[in-house]
Amino acid sequence: MIATTPKPPYFAVIFTSTRTKNNANYTKTSERMIALAKDSKGFLGIESAREEMGITVSYWESLAAIKGWKLNSEHLVAQKEGKEKWYKAYKVRICKIERDYGFEV
Amino acid sequence: MIATTPKPPYFAVIFTSTRTKNNANYTKTSERMIALAKDSKGFLGIESAREEMGITVSYWESLAAIKGWKLNSEHLVAQKEGKEKWYKAYKVRICKIERDYGFEV
Repeated sequence: MIATTPKPPYFAVIFTSTRTKNNANYTKTSERMIALAKDSKGFLGIESAREEMGITVSYWESLAAIKGWKLNSEHLVAQKEGKEKWYKAYKVRICKIERDYGFEV
Repeated sequence: MIATTPKPPYFAVIFTSTRTKNNANYTKTSERMIALAKDSKGFLGIESAREEMGITVSYWESLAAIKGWKLNSEHLVAQKEGKEKWYKAYKVRICKIERDYGFEV
């Protein structure tokens, strides 16, 4: 579940959101977007959790790969639907991972 | 809930984890660490969600601020306890936010 990512540097999109109560088509689209991201050029991994707020972090080889994903035509439609229906608020942060380390039992 | 952060660049720590079943002292320490982070020099904001996996993103003014937080003595004790008791696995990713944008209804 914790994404297996290469040695830094690599890039990430931190997508933080709060939801409306409108669930129409949300889960289906959300799953489709994850499948689509996984098939996109330069995709490295994705991590997601939601309680009061949702946080999805996707990892990418380059800023160009992130741009490619943002401009994917099916993703653009979902972004529009998201603003119209599913999200009260969201924030997208594009970042460069400079260092990482981990722990496993 | 979505952190209000300044204009980039700023920095973030993405902490992704999976938990053991040991809850001893976990919630209390977790809340204390959030309070402590908020009091730390250079702290900008924090966002957190947990389902199967937990994702906590904290935002900071500088890499020096992140280092200060990592080396906080009370936080060091919690990190040790975390490895011994609460976490099956975790990954810490240090990154520089290069761009951000948002949406609000």
